[in-house]
Amino acid sequence: MCYSALDAGKRFRPILTLTVGEMFGANRALLPFACAIELIHCYSLIHDDLPPLDNDDFRRGKLSCHKRFGEAIALLAGDALLTEAFFVMSDPGVARLLGAPLISDLVREVSGAAGIRGMISGQSTELELGKRKVTTTVLEGLDRLKTGALITTAARVGAMIGRASRKDLDRVTRYGQSLGLAFQITDDILDAHEVSSNNSNHKGITNYLSVAGPAKARERVQALLAECLREVEPYGKAAEPLREIARYVAQRTE
Amino acid sequence: MCYSALDAGKRFRPILTLTVGEMFGANRALLPFACAIELIHCYSLIHDDLPPLDNDDFRRGKLSCHKRFGEAIALLAGDALLTEAFFVMSDPGVARLLGAPLISDLVREVSGAAGIRGMISGQSTELELGKRKVTTTVLEGLDRLKTGALITTAARVGAMIGRASRKDLDRVTRYGQSLGLAFQITDDILDAHEVSSNNSNHKGITNYLSVAGPAKARERVQALLAECLREVEPYGKAAEPLREIARYVAQRTE
Repeated sequence: MCYSALDAGKRFRPILTLTVGEMFGANRALLPFACAIELIHCYSLIHDDLPPLDNDDFRRGKLSCHKRFGEAIALLAGDALLTEAFFVMSDPGVARLLGAPLISDLVREVSGAAGIRGMISGQSTELELGKRKVTTTVLEGLDRLKTGALITTAARVGAMIGRASRKDLDRVTRYGQSLGLAFQITDDILDAHEVSSNNSNHKGITNYLSVAGPAKARERVQALLAECLREVEPYGKAAEPLREIARYVAQRTE
Repeated sequence: MCYSALDAGKRFRPILTLTVGEMFGANRALLPFACAIELIHCYSLIHDDLPPLDNDDFRRGKLSCHKRFGEAIALLAGDALLTEAFFVMSDPGVARLLGAPLISDLVREVSGAAGIRGMISGQSTELELGKRKVTTTVLEGLDRLKTGALITTAARVGAMIGRASRKDLDRVTRYGQSLGLAFQITDDILDAHEVSSNNSNHKGITNYLSVAGPAKARERVQALLAECLREVEPYGKAAEPLREIARYVAQRTE
């Protein structure tokens, strides 16, 4: 669990939770939820790397969990990280700080995004898809679940803890959705660079890049960046960190 | 998810939650939590059956999930069932019925029992153990985590929803702990019967039966049954269903 959770990850999702939360004035109790979302992300990477799924030997610049500790331990470590996320979220001290109704809402939010209504729905659809070619519309729908759901929720959790209004929560949701899709498309572009330089297992898979081609993929990322910027426009200077995050995602393939 | 969750299982854990809850007068909202605990049990069976762990081809009289749908889908189905348990527990309608503070406490309780502080701790210790022989004391400690933690929590959740006093909750906890250990020992005895009649994968594993022998195992089950009966003695006739459950566990090997 520590090997995979405490490493050189970017911490993109928890940083997003903290950044959105701080914009809405949440100065306490953001961290446990930011951590919980990162634990869920880490669990999904461990399970994704297992032989039945991506069969990846390396992750974040070191051996993947199952190459280091064996498949049995990797399976259990993933299970335990997922479970631990809910243990962290329901800490009684945090509940006293935020009030139990919000804790209950946040558990619902995160479990909805991480499970069969979100991330896992995207993963299982991708499995069914295999190497079949599909339209970019189908693929965007899949990416919005597989990657977008948890990123959107990372942003929403920050807004919920900051007691954002319904209208603000809707803005943050749309910002997170565009950001999450941009993140997956740039991931596909980065993955293609890796394929050309390494013996990656991802050769020939169906993703946004393989379906739309590099020019259209980059164009789509720029359009999604514009959507992110438009959604946070009303917050003026306070939203500058959220703009920086969106620009970081759009530019990370350059 | 449906293939493995909606089948011929005994529903031992959810029945325990309902039975304890009803004894303490909880007549509402027991079912979502009983279901959540069964979902967690089902997820653990799917993952346990996978090749890196028990490598079982059959479960509950039919093909195991990965033999039926492949290892990738089985992995995700387990992950999704675990996540769904927390989605079910944090249903807003249930939160209105029970009050959010209890929901938060129940999420903490269940995630504590199912994760690295409970069930998964037992599973990973068992992995490390392999086929080494150990004392019955070590093995009981392991079984109390691997099997006992979730069974104990199934009982405790019923008592918590029934707003049991601290003293009553302690009694229910001890009842659940003895019941859970008895359940695992009788499972080991049943497993040995299966080994002698089938090509089971469990041959030669270290468990209570292989360490203590059949006579001492049966004796231990009877002592645990007596502990269960003693804990619920103060509740008189109202505890008859809990006595029935304990007797059922003790007698299921006969």
